[in-house]
Amino acid sequence: MHKGRLEAFSDGVMAIIITIMVLELKVPHGETLGALWPLWPVFLSYVLSFAYVGTYWTNHHHLMQAANRVTSQVLMANLNLLFWLSLLPFTTGWMGENHFAQGPVTLYGANLLASALSYYILQGQIVSAHDQDQSFRAALGSDLKGKGSLLAYVLGTLAALAGWPMVGFAIFCAVALVWLIPDRRMEMVVSARSKTSG
Amino acid sequence: MHKGRLEAFSDGVMAIIITIMVLELKVPHGETLGALWPLWPVFLSYVLSFAYVGTYWTNHHHLMQAANRVTSQVLMANLNLLFWLSLLPFTTGWMGENHFAQGPVTLYGANLLASALSYYILQGQIVSAHDQDQSFRAALGSDLKGKGSLLAYVLGTLAALAGWPMVGFAIFCAVALVWLIPDRRMEMVVSARSKTSG
Amino acid sequence: MHKGRLEAFSDGVMAIIITIMVLELKVPHGETLGALWPLWPVFLSYVLSFAYVGTYWTNHHHLMQAANRVTSQVLMANLNLLFWLSLLPFTTGWMGENHFAQGPVTLYGANLLASALSYYILQGQIVSAHDQDQSFRAALGSDLKGKGSLLAYVLGTLAALAGWPMVGFAIFCAVALVWLIPDRRMEMVVSARSKTSG
Amino acid sequence: MHKGRLEAFSDGVMAIIITIMVLELKVPHGETLGALWPLWPVFLSYVLSFAYVGTYWTNHHHLMQAANRVTSQVLMANLNLLFWLSLLPFTTGWMGENHFAQGPVTLYGANLLASALSYYILQGQIVSAHDQDQSFRAALGSDLKGKGSLLAYVLGTLAALAGWPMVGFAIFCAVALVWLIPDRRMEMVVSARSKTSG
Repeated sequence: MHKGRLEAFSDGVMAIIITIMVLELKVPHGETLGALWPLWPVFLSYVLSFAYVGTYWTNHHHLMQAANRVTSQVLMANLNLLFWLSLLPFTTGWMGENHFAQGPVTLYGANLLASALSYYILQGQIVSAHDQDQSFRAALGSDLKGKGSLLAYVLGTLAALAGWPMVGFAIFCAVALVWLIPDRRMEMVVSARSKTSG
Repeated sequence: MHKGRLEAFSDGVMAIIITIMVLELKVPHGETLGALWPLWPVFLSYVLSFAYVGTYWTNHHHLMQAANRVTSQVLMANLNLLFWLSLLPFTTGWMGENHFAQGPVTLYGANLLASALSYYILQGQIVSAHDQDQSFRAALGSDLKGKGSLLAYVLGTLAALAGWPMVGFAIFCAVALVWLIPDRRMEMVVSARSKTSG
Repeated sequence: MHKGRLEAFSDGVMAIIITIMVLELKVPHGETLGALWPLWPVFLSYVLSFAYVGTYWTNHHHLMQAANRVTSQVLMANLNLLFWLSLLPFTTGWMGENHFAQGPVTLYGANLLASALSYYILQGQIVSAHDQDQSFRAALGSDLKGKGSLLAYVLGTLAALAGWPMVGFAIFCAVALVWLIPDRRMEMVVSARSKTSG
Repeated sequence: MHKGRLEAFSDGVMAIIITIMVLELKVPHGETLGALWPLWPVFLSYVLSFAYVGTYWTNHHHLMQAANRVTSQVLMANLNLLFWLSLLPFTTGWMGENHFAQGPVTLYGANLLASALSYYILQGQIVSAHDQDQSFRAALGSDLKGKGSLLAYVLGTLAALAGWPMVGFAIFCAVALVWLIPDRRMEMVVSARSKTSG
């Protein structure tokens, strides 16, 4: 029951974040389909952030399904994750309105990085709440995708900061795509690669 | 439990979409009832989209009730449906503010079409998650209404694109009305007609 | 389970309506407490509508608790109620920004009336879904408060339309207050009065 | 079940409040990271209010978990709490946009005070709904943190009113921090201090 309400509140916040982002997509003044063209950077930013929040919701869902105990530390870590995710409508809007300029892409990357770190802190708190339970830690696996994403966020943010915001943006799009491909296929790709390289 | 959280998240997103659309209905500056008059296209667009999102919620509700298993593919297909529905406040607002001009009605039709196709993909993923279970596919029936709606969205969008936006808009209103009539009566109409035509 | 999701969706929509209304309360430009003064009509309108939506939520909650079956007709009637409630942020905002002028108060009254009628339709659909069950209709009681409110909305709307918007507004405030007083005390007042008048 | 829906509605309202506040954080016009600088008071206000709403959610969660009965009085007291919390996006926005000036900080403090008093009223109504149940009152404990916070809100509001808004703001930040530190550690600090001072 405890867990149920944590999930319900997180679902609510993530559902609102995802839907509030669309408010940045302002109704254009013209009435031809051509009037939509200038909106492409805002639209593309929206698609990217929708994919990220959707992925966070899916992962949060799986993480909580495995959890049985919710401690005060878990509640705090969850609020911390929701805080960083709640900034996404702001950073997404800034990035879209400035056509992926250096400053906004850097901030967007920092937001993704902070969200990912918060997710790790939450996961860590849940693991330590299940201390005795070896199976929980085992279920998390080696988490290549998670660790790779963290590295990618750092690289993308640094690239934007160094003056290549489009490289940063491309990296953030690539990470989102990797998460959208369902896990099993991904694992096959990884295992196929490790055989090739091994 | 798995299913419950998918439903809760979808409910949240659809509830917010439905309510955020009303924000397009801006408070008029005059204080007479006559000041409301210029709002009729925005209001009519809101009513139409409310009917559509309400219908999607009802259908989603029935579809999920029949489902027992939620796979990663189902989660993705569900996020995809929510994405297209989340664009409705934008396309609805544009259509209302431009008095059902050609461009906006075309875009609105395309949005309805994309949402309907996404719903079919979701349904398909749920069916394939219930592979062994013949009764699930049987419960879906021949789905005349669904297939007819898809055709109507294509026709309406093409009509708008061809320069008859009011024809397109009328088609979209007609489809919404068909969905608002509860199913049993609808089935009687269909069966009565097939007897007449047969 | 069926019922649970209807409740969850309605809760979501009502929660968003209640919270979206506060967006009409725009941050004032001055920084003194005196700068808040011009906001009083918007604030008062917000308080009134908050009380109404809160009351609808409470009543919806009690109605659904008594219900066991949810039919297609109930789903439609529920969507209809949510539609009229979703217009409250708009009519509330218009009334507040125009200092309870004739037009806006008339529209607000019409909105309250439409919401109340929709609630009765929903209640009727739930009663007819529980056909065989005499206890359900009995539990609803004589519903003096509900019928009196309907009458009051009609009177208040007519008063505003006739050029006395403040009379209409006062009536709407009085009805909201009556609903905020918990039922048992209310019943004692009513029974005391009927003894006095009898 | 009764309790479940009260929780769901409260979760919805609090989730929307927390997410709507971020809308005050308007996308800056410049595209350099420096363009973010003028936003710091709005951002800091957002962080503070996020911490407060998060804390209210956590406390509400614990309070409701201990409760078994929901009376009409509890429903009313809960709506009252949600009303005051729903004003936070407004008071937070005003405070942030005016760089913690006297008027806005006073109003923000009054809002925190009203919310805290409403929480006490809710708690009192739940206690009186569990009349026979001694364990409920015992579970609430001496509530040093709650009573201290009330006092701090009064002091902070008075400080702002007296012309020291930054003192008031600092007090509100300190209270938020105290609530973010999980309870057990807090208790150790308190007991350590009482030994030192004793």
